[in-house]
Amino acid sequence: MNVLEERIIKDGIVKEGNVLKVDSFLNHQMDIQLFDDMAKEWSKRFQGKTINKILTIEASGIGIAAAVARQFNAPVVFAKKSKSINIDGEMYVAEVESFTHKTKNQVIVSKKFLSEDDHVLIVDDFLANGCALQGLISIAGDAGATVEGIGIAIEKGFQVGGQIIRNLGYQLESLAIVDAMDAETGEITFRQ
Amino acid sequence: MNVLEERIIKDGIVKEGNVLKVDSFLNHQMDIQLFDDMAKEWSKRFQGKTINKILTIEASGIGIAAAVARQFNAPVVFAKKSKSINIDGEMYVAEVESFTHKTKNQVIVSKKFLSEDDHVLIVDDFLANGCALQGLISIAGDAGATVEGIGIAIEKGFQVGGQIIRNLGYQLESLAIVDAMDAETGEITFRQ
Repeated sequence: MNVLEERIIKDGIVKEGNVLKVDSFLNHQMDIQLFDDMAKEWSKRFQGKTINKILTIEASGIGIAAAVARQFNAPVVFAKKSKSINIDGEMYVAEVESFTHKTKNQVIVSKKFLSEDDHVLIVDDFLANGCALQGLISIAGDAGATVEGIGIAIEKGFQVGGQIIRNLGYQLESLAIVDAMDAETGEITFRQ
Repeated sequence: MNVLEERIIKDGIVKEGNVLKVDSFLNHQMDIQLFDDMAKEWSKRFQGKTINKILTIEASGIGIAAAVARQFNAPVVFAKKSKSINIDGEMYVAEVESFTHKTKNQVIVSKKFLSEDDHVLIVDDFLANGCALQGLISIAGDAGATVEGIGIAIEKGFQVGGQIIRNLGYQLESLAIVDAMDAETGEITFRQ
């Protein structure tokens, strides 16, 4: 088990409906030392790749991306979520529909901060169905940037998001892939 | 001039209506090396204070708070913004009204992550009228936590927020206090 899996076992809470609460260290309270350890692991897994920009999405991706940026000595760009904005030509916009909630959201990034010269590592805290991630990939594509890899903290392996991204040929490195959870016993099964 | 003021002069853009765009390094694209330098400066200014938690608000405060957390070896808790939530007793909620937009927003923090044992440093990117900051102080008060200080990257010195906070007796350390901006010439005047 790696450091994130150990922490999930220690402090994660399984709730009904395949909900994994990790808000004590990952996405409400944030353990920056853990983030640094996670960033070092991604730095190993993406070794040899040229990465000049870390791309994430507000809000809970930002703290993790800040730690990763330090490893790669690169700036972070975080996409903003918006219900609907006036597109004034200065923004890349991806419209993404949530599988779960059937709501549509826009993911937006200023054109100033992403271009064909960029080699991007996308980072986020969770991957389930992957709607937000698909929006980020779409925006990188619009900018002509190269997605060198994708680093996810926790992937819900029993949902489709990860498989779709791997099928598309991306190097997806999820530090913890949860294949099953039991709300009654609290048991969490990680993929080997 | 400190490192943030120098960067504002170099890359900040003054727009009509007293708008200062710093999205190339502070609140859309984030220069983590700059954040580390800013965090070191706050670490000096709050020397001797016992600080065990960094409190900020999504989204643009998170990256800065992550850098500050490393200096103080403390976790970050970021408050969430919400139009309205069902208060189930598990959350501290502050209702704040924007001076500018006259809209009401809720600022929320889980009760699990803030208590009377906490000595908090509040961190954010901007301080203008200070509504979000007032919400954070209110929540810290509800929790019985002690606000040891407040670190702001850019304070708009010509708006009321900073003065109110200093009048209330808090140690407010803004790294750049903008006293005037001229959209025509692009000139920015910092408080000495």
